[in-house]
Amino acid sequence: MRFITDDFLLDNEPAKRLYHDHAYGLPIIDYHNHLPPEEIADDKSYENISEIWLSDDHYKWRAMRTLGISENYITGNASPREKFRKYAECLPYLIRNPLYHWSHLELLRYFGISDLLNARNANSIYEQTSELLQQKENTTKELLKKMNVEFLCTTESPTNNLEHHKRIKNSSFEIEVSTAFRPDSFVSIDSNTFLDSLSSIEKCSNISIESFQDLKDALLSRINYFHENGCRISDHGLNFIPFKPASDALIQQIFSKRLKGAHLSQLEVLQYKTIILLFLSREYHRLSWVQQFHLGAYRNANTRMYKLMGKDKGWDSIGNYTDVQSLMSFFDQLNKSDQLTKTIIYNCNPADNSVMATLIGNFNNSTVRGKVQWGASWWFLDQIDGISDHLNTLSSIGILSTFIGMLTDSRSFLSFTRHEYFRRILCNLLGKDIEMSHLPQDYDLIGKIVKDICYLNAKNYFNV
Amino acid sequence: MRFITDDFLLDNEPAKRLYHDHAYGLPIIDYHNHLPPEEIADDKSYENISEIWLSDDHYKWRAMRTLGISENYITGNASPREKFRKYAECLPYLIRNPLYHWSHLELLRYFGISDLLNARNANSIYEQTSELLQQKENTTKELLKKMNVEFLCTTESPTNNLEHHKRIKNSSFEIEVSTAFRPDSFVSIDSNTFLDSLSSIEKCSNISIESFQDLKDALLSRINYFHENGCRISDHGLNFIPFKPASDALIQQIFSKRLKGAHLSQLEVLQYKTIILLFLSREYHRLSWVQQFHLGAYRNANTRMYKLMGKDKGWDSIGNYTDVQSLMSFFDQLNKSDQLTKTIIYNCNPADNSVMATLIGNFNNSTVRGKVQWGASWWFLDQIDGISDHLNTLSSIGILSTFIGMLTDSRSFLSFTRHEYFRRILCNLLGKDIEMSHLPQDYDLIGKIVKDICYLNAKNYFNV
Amino acid sequence: MRFITDDFLLDNEPAKRLYHDHAYGLPIIDYHNHLPPEEIADDKSYENISEIWLSDDHYKWRAMRTLGISENYITGNASPREKFRKYAECLPYLIRNPLYHWSHLELLRYFGISDLLNARNANSIYEQTSELLQQKENTTKELLKKMNVEFLCTTESPTNNLEHHKRIKNSSFEIEVSTAFRPDSFVSIDSNTFLDSLSSIEKCSNISIESFQDLKDALLSRINYFHENGCRISDHGLNFIPFKPASDALIQQIFSKRLKGAHLSQLEVLQYKTIILLFLSREYHRLSWVQQFHLGAYRNANTRMYKLMGKDKGWDSIGNYTDVQSLMSFFDQLNKSDQLTKTIIYNCNPADNSVMATLIGNFNNSTVRGKVQWGASWWFLDQIDGISDHLNTLSSIGILSTFIGMLTDSRSFLSFTRHEYFRRILCNLLGKDIEMSHLPQDYDLIGKIVKDICYLNAKNYFNV
Repeated sequence: MRFITDDFLLDNEPAKRLYHDHAYGLPIIDYHNHLPPEEIADDKSYENISEIWLSDDHYKWRAMRTLGISENYITGNASPREKFRKYAECLPYLIRNPLYHWSHLELLRYFGISDLLNARNANSIYEQTSELLQQKENTTKELLKKMNVEFLCTTESPTNNLEHHKRIKNSSFEIEVSTAFRPDSFVSIDSNTFLDSLSSIEKCSNISIESFQDLKDALLSRINYFHENGCRISDHGLNFIPFKPASDALIQQIFSKRLKGAHLSQLEVLQYKTIILLFLSREYHRLSWVQQFHLGAYRNANTRMYKLMGKDKGWDSIGNYTDVQSLMSFFDQLNKSDQLTKTIIYNCNPADNSVMATLIGNFNNSTVRGKVQWGASWWFLDQIDGISDHLNTLSSIGILSTFIGMLTDSRSFLSFTRHEYFRRILCNLLGKDIEMSHLPQDYDLIGKIVKDICYLNAKNYFNV
Repeated sequence: MRFITDDFLLDNEPAKRLYHDHAYGLPIIDYHNHLPPEEIADDKSYENISEIWLSDDHYKWRAMRTLGISENYITGNASPREKFRKYAECLPYLIRNPLYHWSHLELLRYFGISDLLNARNANSIYEQTSELLQQKENTTKELLKKMNVEFLCTTESPTNNLEHHKRIKNSSFEIEVSTAFRPDSFVSIDSNTFLDSLSSIEKCSNISIESFQDLKDALLSRINYFHENGCRISDHGLNFIPFKPASDALIQQIFSKRLKGAHLSQLEVLQYKTIILLFLSREYHRLSWVQQFHLGAYRNANTRMYKLMGKDKGWDSIGNYTDVQSLMSFFDQLNKSDQLTKTIIYNCNPADNSVMATLIGNFNNSTVRGKVQWGASWWFLDQIDGISDHLNTLSSIGILSTFIGMLTDSRSFLSFTRHEYFRRILCNLLGKDIEMSHLPQDYDLIGKIVKDICYLNAKNYFNV
Repeated sequence: MRFITDDFLLDNEPAKRLYHDHAYGLPIIDYHNHLPPEEIADDKSYENISEIWLSDDHYKWRAMRTLGISENYITGNASPREKFRKYAECLPYLIRNPLYHWSHLELLRYFGISDLLNARNANSIYEQTSELLQQKENTTKELLKKMNVEFLCTTESPTNNLEHHKRIKNSSFEIEVSTAFRPDSFVSIDSNTFLDSLSSIEKCSNISIESFQDLKDALLSRINYFHENGCRISDHGLNFIPFKPASDALIQQIFSKRLKGAHLSQLEVLQYKTIILLFLSREYHRLSWVQQFHLGAYRNANTRMYKLMGKDKGWDSIGNYTDVQSLMSFFDQLNKSDQLTKTIIYNCNPADNSVMATLIGNFNNSTVRGKVQWGASWWFLDQIDGISDHLNTLSSIGILSTFIGMLTDSRSFLSFTRHEYFRRILCNLLGKDIEMSHLPQDYDLIGKIVKDICYLNAKNYFNV
């Protein structure tokens, strides 16, 4: 019997109707991901499924480590085929983890494989998928088109020259590929790579950085460069949003100390971060960009493995940093001068869900529907329970109908089924409400809201 | 097809039986609300539904702002009819937010309107409801009687002379209307209106306030005045309960500094608040009052709009202030000398639910059932999910059967359907448990517990 | 009609199949409890059910206090029969609290009583159970055998001479009874009994404690003594795991201050605790023990009752201490030198569930499946909702199939039905997923995972 049927995750009749009549097949606005633009520009083909599935997916690595698998089969020297086989052995033991659904949904939608992957069929599925991936019908561009992607937005450092984005734009590719400006390395004054980042931006901006003003000038030139190249979105990854305002003179002193290699106090770090973030946010507002904040991850918890492997290798978890006072004061500060641009906040810790769902309601105005957005379930939370909790809390405390919906946040070209996954969960919740008479049987209204959340709200919010 | 049927929110047979046989029609003990006593004393009639629905409801305002509606239609100069029409346009897009259920339940119970409000029928519903509101059958007193209210308790400042409450008491009104003593303005020594508050209480107490002792004397005289006028409940709105004990001499110094307009340190503020709250709580205990603490709201997050509009205008959210140590130390301090009176704690942040459900169990004694209560779901949480979470956590960690149940916490005479809403949710949870054999089919027992929670527990707890 | 049937808590067909075919009757590995070893060694018989049910169960005491019962019937001078009768009167009003299910499940499994206990049948059930308890078939050893316990682990202070454990080992008892090493009293340098604890360990280790090194030597000798006697598990009860590293010289100074009775600053206390815990954890790693941390309870909240009764008398609740930074830094510090042994972390506050579910994934390696475990729902959380939340969060964020499952954590010989309770909840969740097609109908796979979680994972993890 087939596992993933047409009614996968749809456990009531109204849900089926909502999904099949109103959500199925809608174009995808993937407004935040980490796809490599070079691979789109090159219209790359993959040799095998391990390359696209296992070479850069720390979710899968982490799961395999929990099952006690040797690192050799995860990030080590085992062959792509051996690594795939090992993942196939693990997969049945990942039931209830989203990887179990995601992996099978990807095999089905991208390769037409409905068998459940395991040790016994690992070899034949490896052959079958590799053969398909090597075909012209499954290059990066074709994979995106197959999923009906209309717009996607990668994430780049301010020093990126956007050459690949330009190549894509100049090609005949039907899908709009934009980027988000992510200046984390210029905010993290406490990082030991901060001075290297300054050197990089000196080169690409032709501005010698000797003062805080120089850095702001350089960043501004990069913002303008990104804007000229179509960028309309920024993104920040932060433990938390600080709010320790300080004078320009003080920030200049702090910046000078850092240039000289002196140690900064924790307060000085927060002061610098506050001011640089306020500066950046005001520039985003000037250009009517959307700003995003990804808050609360506890990164690189395992120092030993971080030193061996670097960041984003599956040694991260959920922090509990949230300081509502500073978070709100930051937005309030921008709002005082009416310089708060459209904003999306993502939380890593679901204990903050209700805080998020309420705070987005504090800065709305009549310029736009759902001006401040609580971003879709992120990272550890983008599974059925996390997505359902997000949607339910947003519904109960905020206004669900204004939500701009899902994104992949992924490095993989095979992750676009997450939009389908989200849409099914959304329709299931709304359908259940209809079934229980918590909502009226008004399919025109609720179907329209489904379409808005799955597609049109994001399209309007990002003007794409 | 009618949306709100007799079995609204009751999705299993035992729930229907519990609700219809045991909860339906019970009198209402609304032990905490913000109704204007003057409007009761005057037995006021309303001109139109906007006056009673939209002129003072920041829940609705906030929802409309999220939908991008111009402030003109919210708190601005648009006519009552235009504002109602705009809200009617919005309402379909508020599905899953409690306003969707509340609004329709109020239209049905108070006006007999079962149509779903929208842009098309806005005008006719506006006419119909306005005509009804202007009738003698729908004055404030009649609206309360219609809902079978037995007791209600408003919330007043210590400086209130209770003239309206006296007028109500001296009238032939069948419903007992009491008040709660809410001395927030005398606790908030860090507020810029603190000195004005002192002036006010000087006048009504005839005590010149030159020392902390003077303030305590003045507050005590007001507590006694409230007590003489039937008040048996107090209420406090606080970010968190502080616990920084200090000597009387130190508090006197802090108080003097404040009188002179000097700036207080954060520690000094907390010390003052600790001591004044301990003083008040001991007085409440002396008089066997019930004390309430509403904790954890993050108020006035949007400074720009706060300056324009003042407080309670929909620019608030959920904070994360909770410090269990200080909260528990405060109660423990009172309990050491056996001066902890009956107490209700309300939390704004549901992440604290389990903390609340356990801490209420730390100070019980044989004098009363459920002496310390975890108050019903408050503000952002008084919807299906919030109420269900509260009841489920209270059940699993505490003792549900001792719960004193729901309150409206509302400024509107049309909010009493929230008791019905709560009762349906309660019966649905208990019914579901019977259906799943998590509870025995003992309708005598469980029906009795339903009646206790919906009515009798509060009646006994407040001795009304 | 019987309340607890064979399908209790199993509300779908796949759940029934999973439970009856795969979980029912499995042996019990109860790797953490507080049973008194003396009563096992003595193969004690109980006079009556109050002795085994009410004399040491602060869950029941707390519930009775919430219902306003006089302390006389709880910990006071009322007779065992009167106390039982009073609890029987209360029990119907404990619906939805786990005591309601636990009490009836224990009456059914240990005494074959399926009637629901209440005031009317209290006397006859008291007679019936007392008669059974006095029989040879219901001594402590027989009660454990009846539940198919294979291994159990009590919890003892380092100064315990393990005489009762030796007696059990030297008897013919089929069940392996081990112990966990719990050195809380040597970590709590801020406790007023710290010096007494030092005196105790001086005696049993024959080491005079004049320096921090002496204490480490003494603890090491006790660890070795416990190890020689079969102990392979340690346990710590802490508000939170601190991380304030300090030099040995500084710790020696702090320790000397404490020996002289001087007051320690909060920082000094944290520094001491950090270093002693790191020391202990490294020793546990050397011996390949499993270490457990029970984090986040707020103990002895009611000072007045604590002074009257002492600790563990039902005056505790859930704290909000969690500092992810220090928690992770502590484990990271051990992991840097590859000295992090198998570890189980239990949280008291469910707001930390997602933090827990992620952090356990940060230190896995290929040496063992599920090396760092998020311990089963603890204390206030070991009911249907708490267990379900734990399993669901673990599933969504971690890998459920590696979980080592349930424990009683109890002082009572009648608590082993909690394993059945857990197994039913687990099977119900998995069955529901099968029913909703969230999981494939692969009973071999899912049945195997059920068996792993209920039995084999713990057996392998603890090598028993």
